[in-house]
Amino acid sequence: MKNIIVQKFGGSSVANIDRIKIVARRIIASKKKDNHLVVVVSALGDTTDELENLAHKITNTPAEREMDMLMSTGEQISSALLAMAIKTLGSDAISFTGSQVGIKTNKSHTKARIETIDCHCIKKALKENKIVIVAGYQGITEDNDITTLGRGGSDLTAVALAYSLKAKVCEIYTDVKGIYTTDPRKVKQAKKIKQITFEEMLEMASLGAQVMQARSIEVAKRFNIPIHVRSSFSKEEGTMIVKQTDKLEDIAVRGITSNSSEAKITIRAVPDQAGIAAKIFTEISKAGSNVDLIVQNVSQTKHTDISFTVPKKDLTKALKASRAVAKKIKAGDVLHDDNIARVSIVGSGMRSHHGIAASMFEVLAKNKINIDMISTSEISISCIIEKKHEAKAVEVLHKTFKLN
Amino acid sequence: MKNIIVQKFGGSSVANIDRIKIVARRIIASKKKDNHLVVVVSALGDTTDELENLAHKITNTPAEREMDMLMSTGEQISSALLAMAIKTLGSDAISFTGSQVGIKTNKSHTKARIETIDCHCIKKALKENKIVIVAGYQGITEDNDITTLGRGGSDLTAVALAYSLKAKVCEIYTDVKGIYTTDPRKVKQAKKIKQITFEEMLEMASLGAQVMQARSIEVAKRFNIPIHVRSSFSKEEGTMIVKQTDKLEDIAVRGITSNSSEAKITIRAVPDQAGIAAKIFTEISKAGSNVDLIVQNVSQTKHTDISFTVPKKDLTKALKASRAVAKKIKAGDVLHDDNIARVSIVGSGMRSHHGIAASMFEVLAKNKINIDMISTSEISISCIIEKKHEAKAVEVLHKTFKLN
Repeated sequence: MKNIIVQKFGGSSVANIDRIKIVARRIIASKKKDNHLVVVVSALGDTTDELENLAHKITNTPAEREMDMLMSTGEQISSALLAMAIKTLGSDAISFTGSQVGIKTNKSHTKARIETIDCHCIKKALKENKIVIVAGYQGITEDNDITTLGRGGSDLTAVALAYSLKAKVCEIYTDVKGIYTTDPRKVKQAKKIKQITFEEMLEMASLGAQVMQARSIEVAKRFNIPIHVRSSFSKEEGTMIVKQTDKLEDIAVRGITSNSSEAKITIRAVPDQAGIAAKIFTEISKAGSNVDLIVQNVSQTKHTDISFTVPKKDLTKALKASRAVAKKIKAGDVLHDDNIARVSIVGSGMRSHHGIAASMFEVLAKNKINIDMISTSEISISCIIEKKHEAKAVEVLHKTFKLN
Repeated sequence: MKNIIVQKFGGSSVANIDRIKIVARRIIASKKKDNHLVVVVSALGDTTDELENLAHKITNTPAEREMDMLMSTGEQISSALLAMAIKTLGSDAISFTGSQVGIKTNKSHTKARIETIDCHCIKKALKENKIVIVAGYQGITEDNDITTLGRGGSDLTAVALAYSLKAKVCEIYTDVKGIYTTDPRKVKQAKKIKQITFEEMLEMASLGAQVMQARSIEVAKRFNIPIHVRSSFSKEEGTMIVKQTDKLEDIAVRGITSNSSEAKITIRAVPDQAGIAAKIFTEISKAGSNVDLIVQNVSQTKHTDISFTVPKKDLTKALKASRAVAKKIKAGDVLHDDNIARVSIVGSGMRSHHGIAASMFEVLAKNKINIDMISTSEISISCIIEKKHEAKAVEVLHKTFKLN
């Protein structure tokens, strides 16, 4: 039996017809005698936005079932065009919709979850030595309604197909060369990471690295499907996302992320009673705001200060809810600050390396960067600092943890 | 059981979002308590051309299966948008692709024929009192491959659904108010026809009237499905296409058509032998040209002149083939003329009215319009004349046969 390789090409890789032709040539080049190729493709560059605009000219709240019917055409178009381009270059290819390849999902329109994949028709086409092109981001319910998998859903299609087809590897082609130690657009010294673990990648993704959809990484982790993130426009190897990296013990910190998309709210002098935090965050959640990092200072006078961060776009409603709840529970002032940034260090090696947190705090202090809030997970440490220090903080952390 | 009405809206009726909203309101207005609506929709105005252009940027000969995969998205988009628009206005609607409503076709990609329709899911939605929107022009093979039905295929979807659902009427909404006695853009006196028979309509369509796809009329005729051709932008009644009109005996000529899209070729001095015509037209067909009207003069000297018309776009290849075959069969010169027009009169009443042909020839002669070739069918008479007389010929015929 030949090896099966699943490749996924994102919207920027198939932004226009010229790029589709480049991608077609690349796919043909990677089709060797001893492998089968299954290619998942996103919609052409702007198609998704264009289709959304059409719907929003009709209503701001389009029926979700009809929205899925509409949006799924984007990937159907690109998969048909890619199959044509490959056939025109002399290789055999065939395109399928999510429905045709039997990607069965639940009924949660616009954010459906894949339940089963019937690979029958893909396997038949592979046996005929065809390159199989699958429209990403979509599936079908048991009632035969078309569904979509949410933003980044083509990644999920690729990972799920790789699992179902027992593929050797799932290659995610994108417009960057892989996963970097930090954002290469911001830090010149950023280096491409050769290998990263699923959990590190998940942590990086949740802290702001946007190369791959987090849900897809979770699925890849659960079923141990190696992912290769690489560039559509370069032959260079990219980054392997794997269960365990080769030299795990040598590296404490895999990467640095930062983002300034959040704002901080502090409720002063909260009465220190059981259940009071639950009361506060229930109200904020009801107001429709997400809450991310939460810090509660140890109380010494029967009162405590509670600080937390929310997405900047939710600040107004979160503030309103905070003021209302502060009044109700007889707490003090409500303060806010949207001039903050979060810098985080991520690495599975933290588990076995001691003193990582101390190093982080020390180097920030040495550079006169004040730490406002701290939050840690098993494999990451995040600090909230003043926004003006964001770039500097990333730079010195990148150097301190030998990522240069 | 409520009456089922099938409505079909063409590309110009759903050219943009504003028109989709107008169509949505119109559909809701025609949804009464005692009827069920099934609406077939074409692709938005330019979508079909845009999708074709994408394919042709890749290759001039796109794989037909992939072409169908691509083109079928146009109607999927418009049906989803129309369902959204109807739901936004407060009525319930649901959209389906050709595949979802079980329109099974043969495997002739880009020009597939409908074999069966499984109306199960439409009937279920109608029972839930939903307005059912069906993407026109498409179906699916037994192998689950998407097919399209060729130009004007949405008409066919509508007629086939009307048959399968035992609909009371099939309404074809378009940008004109119905079928006219002749082209109203060319002749001011053209009048809308109230009723026309299937066979008259078929004859008019084949002679150049482009309101409805000929194949759909054939199907409607075979299964006796009344068609109502009317405007999307007016409440006025349009034209009913029926098996037999109410006052058939009163009208000899129903309409006049004309077109100047053909050219004439004459092969002189063809040896008058059995099988010689077959030899000529086999060669021309092999060259890839259609042949329309053929006239062979009675031979008096063992030689005969054969004239025929071909589409202007095929003239070069037809001429080349004609010269080659003329040489082979030892015929004379090959002449051609692309400065011709065909004017035709159509009417089932011709069967019972005598002297129609004589009247036609007489009025043309009286107006000094020379007739070059004549061809007749059971319910039509066509004359080939000089192109410069086209407008005048239509005008005088329109008057002569009391269509003003």
